[in-house]
Amino acid sequence: MKMAGITTRSIWLEPDGWSVGIFDQRRLPWAIERMILREVEDAHHAIAEMATRGAPLIGAVAAYGLALALRADASDAALDAAYARLIDTRPTAVNLAWALKRMRDHVAPLPPSQRATTAYAEAARICDEDAALNLAIGHSGLPLIRSIAARKGGQPVNILTHCNAGWLATVDWGTATAPLYLAHDEGIPLHVWVDETRPRNQGALTAFELSQYGIAHSYIVDNAGGLLMQQGEVDLVIVGTDRVTANGDVCNKIGTYLKALAAKAHDIPFLVALPYSTYDAATPDGASVPIEERSAAEVQGVTGIDENGEERRLTVTHSSVRNPAFDITPAALVAGYLTDKGYFTSASELKKAMTAAP
Amino acid sequence: MKMAGITTRSIWLEPDGWSVGIFDQRRLPWAIERMILREVEDAHHAIAEMATRGAPLIGAVAAYGLALALRADASDAALDAAYARLIDTRPTAVNLAWALKRMRDHVAPLPPSQRATTAYAEAARICDEDAALNLAIGHSGLPLIRSIAARKGGQPVNILTHCNAGWLATVDWGTATAPLYLAHDEGIPLHVWVDETRPRNQGALTAFELSQYGIAHSYIVDNAGGLLMQQGEVDLVIVGTDRVTANGDVCNKIGTYLKALAAKAHDIPFLVALPYSTYDAATPDGASVPIEERSAAEVQGVTGIDENGEERRLTVTHSSVRNPAFDITPAALVAGYLTDKGYFTSASELKKAMTAAP
Repeated sequence: MKMAGITTRSIWLEPDGWSVGIFDQRRLPWAIERMILREVEDAHHAIAEMATRGAPLIGAVAAYGLALALRADASDAALDAAYARLIDTRPTAVNLAWALKRMRDHVAPLPPSQRATTAYAEAARICDEDAALNLAIGHSGLPLIRSIAARKGGQPVNILTHCNAGWLATVDWGTATAPLYLAHDEGIPLHVWVDETRPRNQGALTAFELSQYGIAHSYIVDNAGGLLMQQGEVDLVIVGTDRVTANGDVCNKIGTYLKALAAKAHDIPFLVALPYSTYDAATPDGASVPIEERSAAEVQGVTGIDENGEERRLTVTHSSVRNPAFDITPAALVAGYLTDKGYFTSASELKKAMTAAP
Repeated sequence: MKMAGITTRSIWLEPDGWSVGIFDQRRLPWAIERMILREVEDAHHAIAEMATRGAPLIGAVAAYGLALALRADASDAALDAAYARLIDTRPTAVNLAWALKRMRDHVAPLPPSQRATTAYAEAARICDEDAALNLAIGHSGLPLIRSIAARKGGQPVNILTHCNAGWLATVDWGTATAPLYLAHDEGIPLHVWVDETRPRNQGALTAFELSQYGIAHSYIVDNAGGLLMQQGEVDLVIVGTDRVTANGDVCNKIGTYLKALAAKAHDIPFLVALPYSTYDAATPDGASVPIEERSAAEVQGVTGIDENGEERRLTVTHSSVRNPAFDITPAALVAGYLTDKGYFTSASELKKAMTAAP
């Protein structure tokens, strides 16, 4: 997508053809800073310190991390060491393990002399595939936005989103944002309500993404969506997801469920964008998903910039805290699933498509 | 209620018998600082600079402000000047105008020599009446908490509240909090989920109040309530209100509606606490209530304390913002109204009680 006017992905090869560029997402949206990864240790550091984030992007960074390691030393021992070094950076990230395993399976059978080149090619393929998946999700959502736009006769289509399911969490396009970028590209007037998404305020990233692409948007507190729906100012809700269970229940960032309830109350379509890899056929329903409890510090404080533009952290309460990171939106509240395999308006259609032989 | 272990109201006469004490609420919850008002100008300043807040408390401070003025000069001219000086401090505060008018009507017919003493007595009556109203609201809510406690057999009753409808906004007890204090006083185990209530984080005040009184509570982001209800961790929701319309619709702090929808979805009683003065028989329904739009800066930033305990403000986004301050909870989502005239489970009962001759 776009950063400071330049079309870019969230990860790229530098002009030297081998070092890997990413944005330091710890500095976003306050500052656009690039990081150059030149060895496996750089990739480890970027993932572990959360300079890079978002499951698909973490997978891509890890894949290139392995390629960087093999460029320096393509021996079996070096391959094993790099794999081990990278896989422990964020133990719960599924895409990280998936990408590393794919890379290792691909290069391990080869003679060392061919490993680095093949690894770079495979990492690039992982990136291209992620971008293509998200673009396909975008095309699944575009017709609905077109039809709302037609109904509104030139008035902007108002779309509410929660958290950041944008291109900065993926290689390109994002999941929930992909339909927005496509709609904007074809000239449909849009306005996006961006939920702040406390406690980590990932909405600030979404707002930043949209501003870089020139899409009209308003940043709102998480409390505001209900009133906006009451006032007829929301035409559509699109969110991403961390996991969709076999029955179509949606595990996503805390607060998603409240917006889904409100959308239902106002007959506003509530859409969930997901790539095939996020569908979890092995888990029957949302009640079976363990909800991650995160640190009290996230809720007790907030991060922002001071009057000098310096990033700082303040304390907002000393009280004890509960900080569940996700909630479950029951399938009954979901009007449709936007996937790389098409648009499905029921959990059973979704299941059929997601569990079909490839 | 309690502050640093001492039982106190939010406004009091100092030991000298004439100067008026309040807490500087701009410093709460970070620091407990008292302010002493010795002349009408002090009262004007406290209200205008928001050192004091909450409609009932503002009315009480204004009433004492008039008494302070008359103590210095009880002439007609001084009375008029003080009235004029105070009424403009917060032009939209209904209680402010109500209290000042009541005071003036009471003292104006008297000879100047009797005005100051009478004004002090009337200001004290305004305070006592507000405390009594809230205590009565508390007694309206107590039986329901008792019955939930009995059902839970010793497990804490989990009550969720939004914003600050606590004693710091009134003279004593608060509205939504009054039943909690009474329940705690009689030994019912409670745990309160305190919504942060972005953008102004008034939940930090509620959490502070509860901590000063020793009531167990957890501060949560506004996004969390839906999940907690899904997990069966909320037994009851109690909120205050800025206005209840003739049909029982509830205008309250932005985000209230989302909690009411979730409570309904989980069959959790959603209660609204209000004194008679908050019932607006002249406005037919919530759709007729204009929604105040507040400054973008509230949403774009956040206030807290830094590592040195200094209060600071940070910027969280540079994006454009919508900042509606209130939303409307339809009467259909309200399980009951806790009032100074009793507990009413329908809008029609509420209307009958609120519009009955006194």
